Parts: sequence; C-alpha cells; structure tokens
Amino acid sequence: MTELENDRFLRALLRQPVDRTPVWMMRQAGRYLPEYRETRAKAGDFLSLCKNADLACEVTLQPLERYPLDAAILFSDILTIPDAMGLGLYFETGEGPKFRKTIRTEQDLNSLIRPRMADELGYVMNAVSTIRRELNGRVPLIGFTGSPWTLATYMIEGGSSRDFRHSKAMLYSNPELMHALLDQLAEVIIDYLNAQIDAGAQAVQIFDSWGGALSYRAYEEFSLRYMTKIVAGLQRESEGRRVPVILFTKGGGQWLEKMADSGADALGLDWTTSLAEARSRVGHKVALQGNMDPSVLYAKPEYIRREVEQVLQEYGTGTGHVFNLGHGIHQFVDPDRAKAFIDAVVELSPAYHPE
Amino acid sequence: MTELENDRFLRALLRQPVDRTPVWMMRQAGRYLPEYRETRAKAGDFLSLCKNADLACEVTLQPLERYPLDAAILFSDILTIPDAMGLGLYFETGEGPKFRKTIRTEQDLNSLIRPRMADELGYVMNAVSTIRRELNGRVPLIGFTGSPWTLATYMIEGGSSRDFRHSKAMLYSNPELMHALLDQLAEVIIDYLNAQIDAGAQAVQIFDSWGGALSYRAYEEFSLRYMTKIVAGLQRESEGRRVPVILFTKGGGQWLEKMADSGADALGLDWTTSLAEARSRVGHKVALQGNMDPSVLYAKPEYIRREVEQVLQEYGTGTGHVFNLGHGIHQFVDPDRAKAFIDAVVELSPAYHPE
Repeated sequence: MTELENDRFLRALLRQPVDRTPVWMMRQAGRYLPEYRETRAKAGDFLSLCKNADLACEVTLQPLERYPLDAAILFSDILTIPDAMGLGLYFETGEGPKFRKTIRTEQDLNSLIRPRMADELGYVMNAVSTIRRELNGRVPLIGFTGSPWTLATYMIEGGSSRDFRHSKAMLYSNPELMHALLDQLAEVIIDYLNAQIDAGAQAVQIFDSWGGALSYRAYEEFSLRYMTKIVAGLQRESEGRRVPVILFTKGGGQWLEKMADSGADALGLDWTTSLAEARSRVGHKVALQGNMDPSVLYAKPEYIRREVEQVLQEYGTGTGHVFNLGHGIHQFVDPDRAKAFIDAVVELSPAYHPE
Repeated sequence: MTELENDRFLRALLRQPVDRTPVWMMRQAGRYLPEYRETRAKAGDFLSLCKNADLACEVTLQPLERYPLDAAILFSDILTIPDAMGLGLYFETGEGPKFRKTIRTEQDLNSLIRPRMADELGYVMNAVSTIRRELNGRVPLIGFTGSPWTLATYMIEGGSSRDFRHSKAMLYSNPELMHALLDQLAEVIIDYLNAQIDAGAQAVQIFDSWGGALSYRAYEEFSLRYMTKIVAGLQRESEGRRVPVILFTKGGGQWLEKMADSGADALGLDWTTSLAEARSRVGHKVALQGNMDPSVLYAKPEYIRREVEQVLQEYGTGTGHVFNLGHGIHQFVDPDRAKAFIDAVVELSPAYHPE
C-alpha cells in the first residue's frame, strides 16, 4: 500500500502530537454538494450509488477536491447490513428508508440470513478497496457501521421512527428477543468492520444514531454492551498501524464515562456537550471528536469562524481532538460555508498545538 | 376558593414531606383517551377545543375520572402566545402546527402585537377559572407556557422543524434580533403566567421543548437566560400558598446545575438522565419531576410496574420527587396501560416515604 501523506487524523485519535487539529465532516459526501447530486442522478438512486464502487468512490473523493480535509469516509449507508440479512431495503422519494420485512417475533428473527462479506456485502468491500486505491495515500479512509441498537430499530419498525414504538415495546416486554437480535447484529457487524479493515479502512466509526433515545439504564444494557462487544472483536492492527475505533452515540453526552470504558479510542460528541467538560471527564482515556452544531453553517462566514474558535478554545491546547460537526452536514448548507468552516479550523488550530 | 383536598403534588415540589410520590402525566388529556377524541370531534378541531372553556375543562378532567392523578393541567397549547401576537396559528391534518406569518426580520418583529391577557388571551384565563371551579379542590391545577426559545423557533420557522434552519441562522448571524424577540416573548410570558395564576393556576410549568437542540453555550444565552427572567417576574404566592415553578428542558440533562440556579422550584427530567445522579447533583436545591420513558407504556403491565419500581428506587427515599413520564404520553398507548402505570406509583411509592 502507498504510504500515508497525512496521518494527523489517525494520530489525534490515538492522542499523539499533531501540528494542527484534524478535521472532517460527517456526511461530507452528501447532497449539499452539486457534484454529488450530479453523480447521484447518474447512478439513478441512492442505493445504486452505494452499490456501484466507481461512483461510490467518486462521491467519496468529491469533498476532498474542494476542502483540505484530513480524512475520507466510505460512501455507504448504515442499512446495508439489514438489507443483506434479507429485509429488502428501499427508499421512497421524500421519505426515509423502508424495509419490506420487519423483525418482531422469534420466527422473524430465525428467518434472518447471516450475510457473507464477500457475497451479499461484497459491494461495500469493493467500494472500500477502490476508494483506498484512488485516495493514493492522501488521507486515511474511515469505514463505518450502525450500532446494533440503531440497526435493530429500523429492522423492528420497518423504517425510521419518532417514538420507537415497536422497538421499545420489544425491549421492555420481550428483552430476551431483543438481546438475541442485538447479539446477532453484533456478530455480523464484527465481520463487517473486520472485512472493511481488510479491504483498506484505516479507522472505523460506530454510529449509534438512536442510542440517545434510550433511558440511561436501557442504554447500557441494549446499546453500549453490544458496541463494547464489537470493539473487543475487531482487529486493531492493519498495515503495521493501529486501527482506531470511534464510538458516536448522538445524545449520549451524559454517559461519556461509560462509553470511555468500551475500549474505543475516541468518542464522538454532539454540540450539547461541553468539550471542556468532556475532556476533563474522559480525556485521559479517549480522544474526542466533534462538536460544532451543523446549523452554524447557516450563518455568515465570520460567525462560523468565531464558533470554530470557541470550539477550539473549549478543547484547549494539545492533541486528542478531531474537529467535526456534531452531526451530519445538512443538505441545504452552501458549500462555501463548509469551506469557511474547514479553512477556519486549518488556520486557527495550529495555535492549540505548540511544540 | 375551596380548600385543596390533595396537595401532595404542591408539597413534593417544595420538598415538604408527603405520604406517597405524587404522579401526573404530561399530555394526560390527550388523544390516547377515547373520551378525549369524542370531545375533540364535538369541538371540531384542536384550536376550537382550546378556545372553548367548557370543552377544555371537560377534557382536562377526563383523565382524573379514570386515574388517581395528583394534578390536573390546563388543556391548551404552547402556541397560543404567538397566535395572539398576530402570527395566525392553524393546524393541517396530519401535519404539525403552522403560522401564516413568520418572524425573520426587524420589521417582522416590530409588527408583533403585545397581546392583552383579558382580550386576545382571555379564552385561556376563562379555561383556567372554569377548570379550577369544576375541580372543586380535588387536586391542584397546573398552568403552563412554552419557553421563549421554543416559541421563537415556531415563529421563525413558521411551524415545526427538524434542523431549526432559520432559527439557528438568526441565532448565529443576527444574535441581536434573536435577543430582541426572546426578550419580547419573555415579557409576554410573564404576563401570561401571572394571569393564569390570578385565574387560579396553583403551579406553573415552562416547557422548553427545543432547548435541547441548542449547543451548551447557546442554551445558556438564548434559552435559560430568558426562563430565569420569567421565573423572577412571576408572582410566587397566591391564595396564601407558594406557587411552584417547574422548568422542563427536554434533552437538558447535562445542564441541571445551571437550571437549578434559575429560581425554579423543580426541574423536569427526561429518561436519559439518571434520577439518582440528578438528585445528587441538584436535589438539595430543587425537586425533580419525571422521568419514565413514555414508551414503557407500550409494554405489558408487569413490565410497566417493574420500571416504576426502578424509577422509585433511583430517586430513593424522601420527598422532592414528582413522578411523571419523561415526555408527553403517546397517542397510541392503551389507556389501561396508563392505568397500570398510575396504579403502580400509588401502590409502590408509600414505601419510599417512611415517617
């Protein structure tokens, strides 16, 4: 493999010294970019774009052409796994993802396929190796997955949900069935991330998008426990380097101490959490990734710059911080505002990394 | 006024001894009750129901007929204020609330009406006094309002929002305009709650439904600051008793210490916060209200009972706890499950209040 030209993202995740704070954006290859919308139109629909390695590679690289980002992230979807397990993922225009089948009984659970990484999910690994080749060592490539709890909610509800009616009914009324589903998902996810690492992913992130919808007790039992199992099952070395794991529970700011015991190298934070407090709580154990409110990008460039400065000040001096938004970039953001954001991190952050 | 037969709700809010933990449910007069749906059909639509004092009184009392609740809450909507300020509230079937006008410029702001409590908002005060008369001292009546920030988001977006695009753009790009709007709302809300107290409300709750969407810095500056101003502006005695104020920021579990300094008597908690931790952080200053996940009510009665026991154990022994859900009861809940919940609190909680 080609040598990595820019490794400050990997170094910061392992709390090793860096020259400036590395930066990337969740959903950086996304609808806010006109070139993304063009490629997606070429692909036909979102799933076809995910399943075409060349086009998935094309959109992965697009934001890197525009901005001095320190990492690329695989273009894919967290719902590839339930789809490969036989649920039949589809997207209806203007609505969220949907599944043709749902999982609500033991019989449903037993009907799930154990997907093979070289077969049902081979297209993801093709995308990883294609992107890795085309990146040619510019920046590291991040692989990712949804968390077991997050995937389970979609599988049980049959799509997105506001109140997680069926998932919570199962969690509270039939915890054994819920645990069986989560355990099966954790096993598949371990295979999935290890296959991504084999294909060239240099760091991995677990998106626990709906962990924050759980009670503090249920979070430990039904989400964190399975993420901890996944972290323990991953190969943590590849190409002679450690493969850092980032755990991101949206809305999980109250549980950082528990998350820091998961074995992950870094925790993602949304904007409701003070970086200063988070650092004092868990900064001796893990790196922190985040956490500017993505809605700041609706503001004028000078205000974006001021917010960047405040986030940098909050974390303070030294390594262990990866700058990011606290959630995916919104589709209506002007790409020039994203540029103002990235440029501000590049220009302002060296002051926080003295010799 | 008639003497209050059951004051354990008011006593617990002031951290005075009680025989058992008082309980009520946010949105207890709501669509999950068939008798509510009947009255609403009679009224025509939701707004007509709010504006008809007799029917608003009827639905307020309905849950008290079914369950041994310790408080009634005025049936109304948080958007009565922006409506009375001239924005033209309406509801489209299957969608959330909408406004005919939005507030995005200084000119828009200057066009706002300062509503008079006996005039544009007189129907709310009529509902309060009607309900108070019909309650006839059974339990205390809670008045309420939305927080300035929460109301501002609806006024700026023109309705509900997922990303608060225009509100956050104003907050970050034109903070002066945002502050002017919030200040004006705080003034109106002070009048509004004081008028409710004059009309017979015995406690008041400030619903900061969208405070949790703010960054920790923005929360202090744009939401908490104005709620603190409101608390300071309220008359706190009525009919010879203190009128307790409850402040509920959904998703605000990380900011309890700051909220406890607002002057409020009690803080509402959602289910993401540990009651035990919250009590150790702020229980010496304020009472706590909450915090069972409303989705627990999708579970079978024996699981509901188990969760009630866990919430009681979390808070522990002694006064200062008002049992509630961590958010409004969902419309698809079976009323018998709500009964299982209330009954469990009534039966299990005396053990947590020894002599």
